[in-house]
Amino acid sequence: MSLLGGQLGGMQDWQLRVTHLLDHAAREYGGREIVSRWADGSETRTNWAGIRSDALKMAQALRRAGVQPGERVATLAMNHSRHLVSWYGAIGAGAILHTLNPRLFEDQLDFIVNHAEDCVLLFDSAFTPLVDRMKPRWPTVRQYICFDDHPTPQFEAWIGAEDGQTAWLEGDERDPCMLCYTSGTTGNPKGVLYEHRSTMLHAMACLTPGVFGMDSRSVMLPIVPMFHACSWGLPWAAAAAGAKLVFSAVNEPTVLCKLFDEERVTMSAGVPTVWLALFQHIDAEGIEIPASLEKVVCGGSAMPRSMIERFMAAGIHVAHAWGMTETSPVGTTGADTWNWDELTFDERVDVKSKQGRVPFGVELRCVDLGDPSQVLPRDGVTAGALQVRGPWVVKRYFKAETDATDAEQWFDTGDVAVIHPDGTMQLTDRTKDVIKSGGEWISSVELENVAVGHAGVAEAAAIGIVHPRWDERPLLAVVKKPGSEVSEAELRGYLGERMAKWWVPDAVVFLDAIPHTGTGKISKKDLRDLLRDYRWPE
Amino acid sequence: MSLLGGQLGGMQDWQLRVTHLLDHAAREYGGREIVSRWADGSETRTNWAGIRSDALKMAQALRRAGVQPGERVATLAMNHSRHLVSWYGAIGAGAILHTLNPRLFEDQLDFIVNHAEDCVLLFDSAFTPLVDRMKPRWPTVRQYICFDDHPTPQFEAWIGAEDGQTAWLEGDERDPCMLCYTSGTTGNPKGVLYEHRSTMLHAMACLTPGVFGMDSRSVMLPIVPMFHACSWGLPWAAAAAGAKLVFSAVNEPTVLCKLFDEERVTMSAGVPTVWLALFQHIDAEGIEIPASLEKVVCGGSAMPRSMIERFMAAGIHVAHAWGMTETSPVGTTGADTWNWDELTFDERVDVKSKQGRVPFGVELRCVDLGDPSQVLPRDGVTAGALQVRGPWVVKRYFKAETDATDAEQWFDTGDVAVIHPDGTMQLTDRTKDVIKSGGEWISSVELENVAVGHAGVAEAAAIGIVHPRWDERPLLAVVKKPGSEVSEAELRGYLGERMAKWWVPDAVVFLDAIPHTGTGKISKKDLRDLLRDYRWPE
Repeated sequence: MSLLGGQLGGMQDWQLRVTHLLDHAAREYGGREIVSRWADGSETRTNWAGIRSDALKMAQALRRAGVQPGERVATLAMNHSRHLVSWYGAIGAGAILHTLNPRLFEDQLDFIVNHAEDCVLLFDSAFTPLVDRMKPRWPTVRQYICFDDHPTPQFEAWIGAEDGQTAWLEGDERDPCMLCYTSGTTGNPKGVLYEHRSTMLHAMACLTPGVFGMDSRSVMLPIVPMFHACSWGLPWAAAAAGAKLVFSAVNEPTVLCKLFDEERVTMSAGVPTVWLALFQHIDAEGIEIPASLEKVVCGGSAMPRSMIERFMAAGIHVAHAWGMTETSPVGTTGADTWNWDELTFDERVDVKSKQGRVPFGVELRCVDLGDPSQVLPRDGVTAGALQVRGPWVVKRYFKAETDATDAEQWFDTGDVAVIHPDGTMQLTDRTKDVIKSGGEWISSVELENVAVGHAGVAEAAAIGIVHPRWDERPLLAVVKKPGSEVSEAELRGYLGERMAKWWVPDAVVFLDAIPHTGTGKISKKDLRDLLRDYRWPE
Repeated sequence: MSLLGGQLGGMQDWQLRVTHLLDHAAREYGGREIVSRWADGSETRTNWAGIRSDALKMAQALRRAGVQPGERVATLAMNHSRHLVSWYGAIGAGAILHTLNPRLFEDQLDFIVNHAEDCVLLFDSAFTPLVDRMKPRWPTVRQYICFDDHPTPQFEAWIGAEDGQTAWLEGDERDPCMLCYTSGTTGNPKGVLYEHRSTMLHAMACLTPGVFGMDSRSVMLPIVPMFHACSWGLPWAAAAAGAKLVFSAVNEPTVLCKLFDEERVTMSAGVPTVWLALFQHIDAEGIEIPASLEKVVCGGSAMPRSMIERFMAAGIHVAHAWGMTETSPVGTTGADTWNWDELTFDERVDVKSKQGRVPFGVELRCVDLGDPSQVLPRDGVTAGALQVRGPWVVKRYFKAETDATDAEQWFDTGDVAVIHPDGTMQLTDRTKDVIKSGGEWISSVELENVAVGHAGVAEAAAIGIVHPRWDERPLLAVVKKPGSEVSEAELRGYLGERMAKWWVPDAVVFLDAIPHTGTGKISKKDLRDLLRDYRWPE
């Protein structure tokens, strides 16, 4: 296999297996705490040695239950230590850990569990009604285990029957270890099958200063759920770092602020809406941003500039991150640029408002939206379809017949972006939302951002409507602020002063509400459905 | 190969090849500078894009010279950008880059070059006399290239004849990429054959906060020579981070201080003697420690406590590192402990005085010096033979017939150490220097440390001398301070008050000088030779 066939000497054999992470954490940071704040308000504390001991017991319990290597073990749960145990325990037994997103529609959960052929499902008692409804539709599931029922959690009794005297399943580092489905807005959900190797290389990248910059001093509270894109890889990276983890099964600002203070949390990661709620709580209570907080990583959607400014003014290191289930998920992070010390506050906010740069291991490019064979320059201006490749990027979806990438392993993200000369990536739209007008492209997101700047606009969404001459032209849907009397003409005039004339929507429709997805984003798909009979004025 | 044969989907194929590092650095941090201060005082500046462009040209030049994949290309050079180019260029062509230590004896250099069968040798003009003397003894070397002769450096002319329109040799990540010989004190030097994979995993570990904590803001001046244990992996890690590198071909304090200031160096790495010289220069000149310096990593031998205190008092993050050529070389680093914030200044100095903890990927244990099958507890007290394993630890030396490890891949370091309950490793001696008395072990290093605390002692060295009853007993060799009249009885009394009675040396011999190695360490081997006729008093 190697150039000299290993005959002339060389370095040690060592498979990149996820269980090495837990062995390391338990051996070197056994006493470092894992704190769980449960949905009922109670709190439990364990540590990395305890997680490993429990994970070994769970591996035994799974083997006793007849779970074979490669079979899928599902979880339907919020963030807590038992969920963490189940990740390492299932994978340590050789099974594939499959996180289910409880916020999906039941038809999606039906499809996903059957497609994955999950054989064991571990769940939080909060989801018991959902599980009870779904059981008849999930014939592959042979065993259900509740994480937190009372008085004795079924999970504790289940693993408590074992003695932990076992070993992890060893094997090849390209073995699959985890499965997570994308909640795509079109078609059936698709499963990304992570491998031990991809997970480990991603975890090592997560430790670096440009990504999370974790070490054993870090106290990380991952707000991002464990069912969402592997909780951004934090349960793996924290073990490699020997960091303390603080889990909360609920993400209410009151609870989070209390945990931040009591556990002296130094870093956290979550979507912008969580931070918005936290700021509102802080303002309402007249309290300060938790003093121990040093770093906040934000992803999922764009952080408002005011949020970035507020974190930065408080001396908190803030970073935008971009990624997706298909990228494990870290794609770019808003690391400080090398000339950071020379930048003004406003220039720094500019930097942080973009989606950031790749860590070593990820490669990005933009290609022409109409002709993907044409690679676009990194000029900070030319927007195109964002493509990604690297060792923790998907090659082929679970059970798919063909690769999800082109021959050179480029994966199309579905995002539209520009790449700046220094490598900074800036999202401008989604491929399916960008509006094609006369052979040129108009960003629906940029249109919306300008439109909501008008004092009378509460929410705005732009979509392309078929046009006899221009292929498509933008139509803007607007929800007025209560009491606002803004007119179509006024709004188009406002936009015309702030963008190229040919970008200005041909028409504006006023709606009572714009449809949203389950995760609170504007649903362009539903908006298109709603406006499918729209015809341009003659 | 994988559990599900890759049939059910998975992640992308991506070999851990060293050339990915340079591609990343040139693509994402192309303009980040690489500064070289040459032996003649001149300075040149290039950047990561320039390094890549030159390395591609060098790969072409090597191919034109008929160098085949797997052949060895040697360097005999100090730290500078052309040396960096040669690392990536040789490896990119598929050759194995072999760094030669110019400080070795000529017989060692004779052995090493012939054992390695180097076919090309690149050298600094400062070593021209050495090269001219050695040429007749190096029959395998087909081509000699000087890095820095005048007016046109031969190296620049050689690669300047190429256009750089080529590609790196692709291949398996277990291919060898680099060769470095240990300057062992006994027997012939042994070559460690690094692989692309081991080098890459080591580089990723080097980026983490617990090791170097590098990112693109870092300005690294590696004082540790590139011929010494891969310059601690910094030329690889700096590319992954996109850091600025500042090289100096000479390590005089005046030059270093000027470079620190002018290039705003944020981190540096070197042996304690370099820092000692730097402090002396600073004190003599009445200047301050360079203000830009944030982090100093120190290895090779133990840092004096006063040096640690001085760095810490200046607000500089200081870290002890331990490793060896066989461990790529990072084994442990003095990362801040997780309870760092709660420690007093003195407690922090205590932490930093030990050799630190493993990064993820390295595993340590101590075994009984007499019975290696007995693994010792991590109690901070029981000293034993230090063993190490992991993906960047040697398995088999170059051209060796057998593995350098046991069946479980444990490599014996030759060091004696204790491991503390929190995983911190503390060196106490070298295996071959520790003294066996009545079945128990006495640390020669600890004896020496206590002895030099006596006001009349300039230098002290302890060795074991065969004893009819106790197997061995310690003999202490002492060099008195000028004017000191200290007697054997007084010294033994002094030691007796400060250590267990059975540790006290049975006799003291006073010498005019204690022999040293080429790198300034006490040469126990030569001391033993000197005292080989010593007999215990009746």
